[in-house]
Amino acid sequence: MAMTIRDIAREAGVSTATVSRALRGLPNVDPATRERVRQVAERLDYVVSPAASRLASGRAGSIAVITPWIARWYFGRVLSGIESVLAGSDLDLLLSSIGDPSETHHVPPHRKLRRRVDGFLVISLSTDTEGVSEIFESDVPVALIDTERDGCWSVGIDDVNGARMAVQHLINLGHERIGLISGRVMPTPFRPEENRWRGYHDTLIEAGLPVEADLEACGHFTIDGGERAMTTLLARPNPPTAVFAMSDEMAFGALRSLHAHGLQPGRDLSVVGFDGHEMADHLDLTTIVQPVEEVGARAAQALLDALDDPTRTPEQVTLPLSMVVRGSTALRRH
Amino acid sequence: MAMTIRDIAREAGVSTATVSRALRGLPNVDPATRERVRQVAERLDYVVSPAASRLASGRAGSIAVITPWIARWYFGRVLSGIESVLAGSDLDLLLSSIGDPSETHHVPPHRKLRRRVDGFLVISLSTDTEGVSEIFESDVPVALIDTERDGCWSVGIDDVNGARMAVQHLINLGHERIGLISGRVMPTPFRPEENRWRGYHDTLIEAGLPVEADLEACGHFTIDGGERAMTTLLARPNPPTAVFAMSDEMAFGALRSLHAHGLQPGRDLSVVGFDGHEMADHLDLTTIVQPVEEVGARAAQALLDALDDPTRTPEQVTLPLSMVVRGSTALRRH
Repeated sequence: MAMTIRDIAREAGVSTATVSRALRGLPNVDPATRERVRQVAERLDYVVSPAASRLASGRAGSIAVITPWIARWYFGRVLSGIESVLAGSDLDLLLSSIGDPSETHHVPPHRKLRRRVDGFLVISLSTDTEGVSEIFESDVPVALIDTERDGCWSVGIDDVNGARMAVQHLINLGHERIGLISGRVMPTPFRPEENRWRGYHDTLIEAGLPVEADLEACGHFTIDGGERAMTTLLARPNPPTAVFAMSDEMAFGALRSLHAHGLQPGRDLSVVGFDGHEMADHLDLTTIVQPVEEVGARAAQALLDALDDPTRTPEQVTLPLSMVVRGSTALRRH
Repeated sequence: MAMTIRDIAREAGVSTATVSRALRGLPNVDPATRERVRQVAERLDYVVSPAASRLASGRAGSIAVITPWIARWYFGRVLSGIESVLAGSDLDLLLSSIGDPSETHHVPPHRKLRRRVDGFLVISLSTDTEGVSEIFESDVPVALIDTERDGCWSVGIDDVNGARMAVQHLINLGHERIGLISGRVMPTPFRPEENRWRGYHDTLIEAGLPVEADLEACGHFTIDGGERAMTTLLARPNPPTAVFAMSDEMAFGALRSLHAHGLQPGRDLSVVGFDGHEMADHLDLTTIVQPVEEVGARAAQALLDALDDPTRTPEQVTLPLSMVVRGSTALRRH
């Protein structure tokens, strides 16, 4: 006999919503109530039973998370947010990294996973990426992070606007030659990258400032790549006086390049990052801060909600950004 | 009809070992051979079939990875190494984070996973940790990372020796009051922490140097925690002239505290970290470098080998460490 969340709610004398919140460890549950719900769930062997329940219901009992990378800062944080929500559910987290989608990956995730998952969470990848587009052929719900698609739940930030904030800040400081450290040459399979590029580009155009290929360099979203990109920009005939880097890790590399050239961030060349990495404070980096773990948690919750009630209309959630100004940006010197 | 690796080997005219290496994307496979193996596997629908094969064999088709954290540098790297190996196998990666084992976690991983995984990979947690000790009651193989247990495969580094290298380096530079930034007060559920503490302690004792509670502070393996720990040590009546931090992230925090106090790392106080974080170079931090992704990959491979042939005797693999000396350590000034 498989117990359901309703059995626990009845036994504990609370609503099913409260049981769900209590078992998922979410806030807004009275501690005494949480404890009572846990004891009832424990007594009814709730955690173990869903496996049996799933066999009967035809559910696979798991959610697949598809991510381009695991070991990079942003993806680790998002994954941690996802896991914090799924840990309190009866669903397993199947982790699948497809690596850089422009490189060959030996096992396309949709082939590996399609037959036995209840839903997908896709991080940062365009929905037409090879290995990702195929998952929409299955009939399980999909929640997208950093990108959108009709019929899918999605959670993300406004990347265009984030890039606009960064570039406008540099314009306000008097900069006119504003460079960009992007991930790769466009087009890109990563929606955040495409959108940040558009925000950078449009803000310059609207301000009547130059948009030149010579002001852009690729940093591949790594620290070393950011360093090489900054070094490339500095070697150009008419280098920028300020740079927007699409990630904090690339900005850290850019700062390292400045130090290597005897240049002082802020005073000699302004740098803005994007992420809110915990080292940004340490390195005195101005950056756009995004709520990374919350993005992951909200997306996971959206998928659980979609599984609970397949009739719900998918929503697109945009979480707020902020900018933290530090010493790496300063007025342009004349 | 489920295809096996043997079918592919026969069809492609190579050994099963070569098929395994080719499909896992490991090196030392001729590109043409790799391509042929992939085509055969694709044609035989190898990737999808194991699900059916597993139902017949009673296999669950997945490996559970139990980790205290996901979003911290070390754990993300190990996980990435594990995933790189499992991605080429027919096994899914089930990810379970139990958070800080000293805190209550709402769903103990063994209850959630025991009935439907083929093996466990446990990262850093002592085998007697609540929620971990129970997995040994099941009869599936377990591979341990950073810790050992009779009858289990294990992969790790020599943490005692790593700490000894760090502390001996400081002694060689003339330091006599050598502090420690540890994770938490002993005893700890993390074997690496316990072993690094022992390495620190024994090296000081053997050198006849003071071991005092006043020389130690807890940094909780975070950057902010490391900063607070360094600030605490500096405020003590007779502060150390050098500090060994058990992780690079805590060492980064310690460097930040030094800067805030107007002290120059190396010249005024020496700091050694532990990990080989990619920011260590940027911040000029002397550190003990460990092959983190390789630790994860080797452990995953050991578990796959144990599943292939349950009669194999478990091995304990210790991977080599090195020390990179940078500007954060220098001769003690007199």
